[in-house]
Amino acid sequence: MAEERRLIMLPGPTNVPDRVMRAMLKPIINHRGSEFAALLDSVSEGLKYVFETKQDVYVLTSSGTGAVECAISNVINPGDKVIIPVFGVFSERLKEKVTRHGGKVVEIPVEWGNAPTAEQIKTALEEEKDAKLLAIVYNETSTGVTVRELPEMGKMAKENDILLIADAISILGGDHLPVDEWNIDICVTGSQKCLACPPGLAMISVGKRAWETIDKRAVKPPYYFDLISIRDYASRKETPFTPAISLYYALDEALKIIKEEGLEKRYQRHATCAQAFYTALEALDLKPYAAENVRSNTVISVNVPRKVDGAKIREVMREHYKVVIAGGMGKIRQLILRIGCMGIVSEAEVLVTIDALENALADLEHPVKIGTGIEVARQVF
Amino acid sequence: MAEERRLIMLPGPTNVPDRVMRAMLKPIINHRGSEFAALLDSVSEGLKYVFETKQDVYVLTSSGTGAVECAISNVINPGDKVIIPVFGVFSERLKEKVTRHGGKVVEIPVEWGNAPTAEQIKTALEEEKDAKLLAIVYNETSTGVTVRELPEMGKMAKENDILLIADAISILGGDHLPVDEWNIDICVTGSQKCLACPPGLAMISVGKRAWETIDKRAVKPPYYFDLISIRDYASRKETPFTPAISLYYALDEALKIIKEEGLEKRYQRHATCAQAFYTALEALDLKPYAAENVRSNTVISVNVPRKVDGAKIREVMREHYKVVIAGGMGKIRQLILRIGCMGIVSEAEVLVTIDALENALADLEHPVKIGTGIEVARQVF
Repeated sequence: MAEERRLIMLPGPTNVPDRVMRAMLKPIINHRGSEFAALLDSVSEGLKYVFETKQDVYVLTSSGTGAVECAISNVINPGDKVIIPVFGVFSERLKEKVTRHGGKVVEIPVEWGNAPTAEQIKTALEEEKDAKLLAIVYNETSTGVTVRELPEMGKMAKENDILLIADAISILGGDHLPVDEWNIDICVTGSQKCLACPPGLAMISVGKRAWETIDKRAVKPPYYFDLISIRDYASRKETPFTPAISLYYALDEALKIIKEEGLEKRYQRHATCAQAFYTALEALDLKPYAAENVRSNTVISVNVPRKVDGAKIREVMREHYKVVIAGGMGKIRQLILRIGCMGIVSEAEVLVTIDALENALADLEHPVKIGTGIEVARQVF
Repeated sequence: MAEERRLIMLPGPTNVPDRVMRAMLKPIINHRGSEFAALLDSVSEGLKYVFETKQDVYVLTSSGTGAVECAISNVINPGDKVIIPVFGVFSERLKEKVTRHGGKVVEIPVEWGNAPTAEQIKTALEEEKDAKLLAIVYNETSTGVTVRELPEMGKMAKENDILLIADAISILGGDHLPVDEWNIDICVTGSQKCLACPPGLAMISVGKRAWETIDKRAVKPPYYFDLISIRDYASRKETPFTPAISLYYALDEALKIIKEEGLEKRYQRHATCAQAFYTALEALDLKPYAAENVRSNTVISVNVPRKVDGAKIREVMREHYKVVIAGGMGKIRQLILRIGCMGIVSEAEVLVTIDALENALADLEHPVKIGTGIEVARQVF
């Protein structure tokens, strides 16, 4: 296997600081002992800081998808109506999970590249007075779209006395998301995105109103994702099943780095890097896939220019310029490129990525003046 | 957090070789790219060797419990009868999982400390002609019991045309388990036991007869544990959701170490270490909890002597002698001690553990002649 390091500019997993990688080397410990209890305390405190919540936050040994299923399966009773705006692959997945656990999906279809609006949610809530749940992907990783009106949606959910679940996998830690202030009842993220930790863990916050529903649930969730059992074990500073201890060490370190930097500074850094990307793309005559007012600061999506093969661009970037970016997903698999703007991203990573993109395009004989993107991006910083 | 290393003699997680720990530092890669495909190939080949199977073997980012739930939820249709011998905490968990996924449990109650016999399974199969599944914990981690008649049970399952699921979490890689030869349709293990890898991954083999059932299933399993989706992605050398890449590297290295040693030699080493433990316990007048003919080579369980507090023994061993062992689980939580005899275990670990146990007992004023256990154990090697 190649040991050569490439710059990972994927929308997850992303580059992990050495401090975080090295934390994985700490000794294996008893997950039912005092050392793990202390580790869990520390991780929990760090998560409450990043989630900006006083709610319980739990760590699961699973991908983010597992934690979203955990959220869904613990609050849905058979036949419950769930309002879901669908505007990409991950909101489609949300739909599938709700259906699989017996919920009835009320879909708000949204054109891909756009975000659902508070107005749309308002209408849906008026039309579906018996809806139990609003489930929203805050940042659609597949399209590079952020739901900027999420705070208004949180207010509406509270006023209508229904729960709000937010899938914040590709954004939490990279852009604003004060869970309590925005009335998010259950919020989910993954370790390998904006937290800049290796993949394998997922985090889930559960608020008071969500617990009321969970404690009255009629159907049990999957055994592995049972929040009541998770809460019971957490009360004695354990997890129900053997946790991925080495990854907990990494997460703990990643959370410390976030606290050292501070949330505001971190969000600003992500926003500046995103702005640099978007400015460079414009200068290169490349069109972002997402509508301007809902463009994500953590996942940059861009249309593949006509007459160029997106897979080829990625291959040249990866093999010649050592920068790894992603293609599209689902129905736009071939049509877009996606760049992760996450975690440790800074001026250096942005410029190297733009440089690789410019050069790859030139190598593939797409008309591009090398340096154009870099120049305007540099001015952003 | 204490950085001091202790000898981990738990029935999982267990001591991990430095080679395996260091493998986690390999670069984060694209889990939808060629490097991960190569890693998956290598891991898959290693797993087929350890499982002794030509069947498909998949890796899940979850604990072993998650993989057992995966097995159960993919093959059970509502109302299906499932025969389960129950003889400890993990076979009870198996029961709970089957119930949760709509199965009807036919329980074979077995006194804890004993193993179900082939005769009992035969009777159950005769009485329950419409049973669809036989689910057996091959090694009851909570009691230190191995089901030595599993090969006969596999034959019976095949003859009766029902599926056999084996939970081999705390034994695979430490004792004989030729999955194909023993007719095990689905076999599950975890990374942190006899494979000597950090926790966080679980492995599941799925045979042809199991696939026939899965492909005809009437109810979908949890989204995160959907074997059909896992098989689809595996065919293009991917996983459905982001895998714990760093742990895959560790697993790959752990599997290489196993291949270097060879299965027979590895099983013999575990057996010798177990024999040394049992011999020493006898010399110390400590009674193993498991019946003699079904004692496990990977989990050593022993009754706490009268008038001594088991928790206290463990505390003294951990704090004064730097050896970590486990207590009991469930209804025998206070009554036994459990020692992991797994992974890298060798003469050194066995002797250090016995020494710590002898000294802790002496410190707690239990009448024991220090050196008695060590002496007979050394003779075993």
